Amino acid sequence: MYIKRTVDRTVWGLGFALVVGAVFTIIATTAANASDADAELISKSKVIFAPLPSSMPSSDNPITPEKVKLGNALFWESRISTDRTISCAKCHPISLYAVDGLQKSLGNNCKENPRNAPTIFNAASQISEHWIGERTSVEEQAKKALIDQAFFGMPSYESVEKILRGLKGYAAMFKEAFPNEKEPVTVDNFAKAVGAFERTLVTPSPFDDLMQGNATALTEQQKRGMAAFMDTGCMTCHFGPYVGGQLYQKFGVFEPYWKYTKSKAIDEGRFVVTKNPSDQYVFKVPVLRNVAQTPPYFHDGSVATLAEAVVIMAKIQLAKDLTKEQAAAITEFLLSLTGKIPEEALKVPVLPSGEQEL
Amino acid sequence: MYIKRTVDRTVWGLGFALVVGAVFTIIATTAANASDADAELISKSKVIFAPLPSSMPSSDNPITPEKVKLGNALFWESRISTDRTISCAKCHPISLYAVDGLQKSLGNNCKENPRNAPTIFNAASQISEHWIGERTSVEEQAKKALIDQAFFGMPSYESVEKILRGLKGYAAMFKEAFPNEKEPVTVDNFAKAVGAFERTLVTPSPFDDLMQGNATALTEQQKRGMAAFMDTGCMTCHFGPYVGGQLYQKFGVFEPYWKYTKSKAIDEGRFVVTKNPSDQYVFKVPVLRNVAQTPPYFHDGSVATLAEAVVIMAKIQLAKDLTKEQAAAITEFLLSLTGKIPEEALKVPVLPSGEQEL
Repeated sequence: MYIKRTVDRTVWGLGFALVVGAVFTIIATTAANASDADAELISKSKVIFAPLPSSMPSSDNPITPEKVKLGNALFWESRISTDRTISCAKCHPISLYAVDGLQKSLGNNCKENPRNAPTIFNAASQISEHWIGERTSVEEQAKKALIDQAFFGMPSYESVEKILRGLKGYAAMFKEAFPNEKEPVTVDNFAKAVGAFERTLVTPSPFDDLMQGNATALTEQQKRGMAAFMDTGCMTCHFGPYVGGQLYQKFGVFEPYWKYTKSKAIDEGRFVVTKNPSDQYVFKVPVLRNVAQTPPYFHDGSVATLAEAVVIMAKIQLAKDLTKEQAAAITEFLLSLTGKIPEEALKVPVLPSGEQEL
Repeated sequence: MYIKRTVDRTVWGLGFALVVGAVFTIIATTAANASDADAELISKSKVIFAPLPSSMPSSDNPITPEKVKLGNALFWESRISTDRTISCAKCHPISLYAVDGLQKSLGNNCKENPRNAPTIFNAASQISEHWIGERTSVEEQAKKALIDQAFFGMPSYESVEKILRGLKGYAAMFKEAFPNEKEPVTVDNFAKAVGAFERTLVTPSPFDDLMQGNATALTEQQKRGMAAFMDTGCMTCHFGPYVGGQLYQKFGVFEPYWKYTKSKAIDEGRFVVTKNPSDQYVFKVPVLRNVAQTPPYFHDGSVATLAEAVVIMAKIQLAKDLTKEQAAAITEFLLSLTGKIPEEALKVPVLPSGEQEL
């Protein structure tokens, strides 16, 4: 399954590169004045990226309003963690664009997570979840987090179900979301509900407005940055509506990443999952939507600023030394990826009350 | 100041008891049928309690929309704690009626707080803040929490101000809230803004509807429980619009509390603050608004259920063994204190972005 998927993506990636190259050539030869330059940028961008969809559906887990409502509540539920302090919202606080601002998140009993918490906004249509792709979907991520020793740390799925069933108010909410099931309060349905909620979390931004034809949505510097982002080659990995999330790639193609980051340890990346030597130091290409809101940067949060991250990426992934102007413009362009958080996600759900054993 | 306040309260308490006694006698002799009984209950309740006000103002910190807006944002701000995980919302999550469900809250680096986190709803007009009253106001509580080693754990107020000033988006928000100040981004203004936000957090409930004349707002059992709450003497301490929060009282008037609770240690209560032997095992009488939503119970969260807490309180504070029926009715009555969380507090604020030193 994994191998097939990788091959598919590689073949697709090659085709993609050829098409993009051809389109660039055609566009480049027709651009003349300022508005032509805008038109060229917009045309290019539509080939490389795409405006965000209205949600990120899955045939395995259809989005329904009832599931989303339940999932939004469960996202905030901390009583199902071993020290009763960890909820999805702990590492993904909505108020901070669903990141916690830490280098590495702290799970139950302050246990350090292996990697930096990525935002859950615009995250559900990636090739996989987590930095090294060891979770196939947001649903699997939500489920396995419950028993991960550094996350919720619960001893078993059954222990989670026992608590959820003890918080009486959940019975009706699960029943509404999963009406045809005899016992809907299950961990699998927890995962589906949280997943459905996450699948609604898209954050359209000025970048989408530009792609839809509004050339003034970005500043002139941002447009220069966008052109540089494409011309420098960043889009080789950061493409599609999410500006990333569709490929695995070695972090440090030209030089070891730890020569430039301030990493405290060397992370072998996807090699940890596959044990395949070619996956050493390979990570999933992160989604860049809202990247300006989600410092610190990289899998280990080892770099504090976006400007610094941009320079490092060009250096070690593309062997390019950006000029100060290019780096500043690309950084400014990335600000145009900061989007609007959906209203529904900005409502605090009131959770069912309940007395628990001490 | 403290002594004067206590004396004032005691004198006021005596006068209050006499008035209540007289009113009871008058009312009792005129009650005849069911609707008379309702009318009596409503009349009594208006003397002992009172409907919630629309906010809890302070002459020291006038409530303005701009302060409330800023305070709501700062309430969620975790980047001003030493491990960047603690915000006001950490121990007072709005989704759980502003309590964390723990016996004792966990502050920065998982440090255990000395006592159970009380809700911040309907909390700002109490005689003082915290279980032992070592904070005079919500503003003082918010400010001192920043440098309390088990709470936010920051080394100094200056270090907090440095971070807030570094998160550029706050400058305009503080300026709007404190327009006449040259440098409005200060810890004192943090405290005023958070305090102003908290002063808006009142949660009207069916209990208020009853006091305003709607006899059907409570079930018959709840009304029996309300009568029992008054007749048994619970209202001697739990009076006023907040059903508590106005007096200090020894926990365990007739017997040591730890004989009945499952306390792991003996807490000397307000003695810790005053070193006055008469304050040994004395705590502030907690507000009972939303009490059914805020398990576990007592200053150390040592009792899991409200029903159990009711029985213990009658036993050790009033030397009364409640019948099963009385206890159940009082517990049901307390459910009528569960109120509606203000819409504004149910909105997640989007916090200013910002890159911080690692």
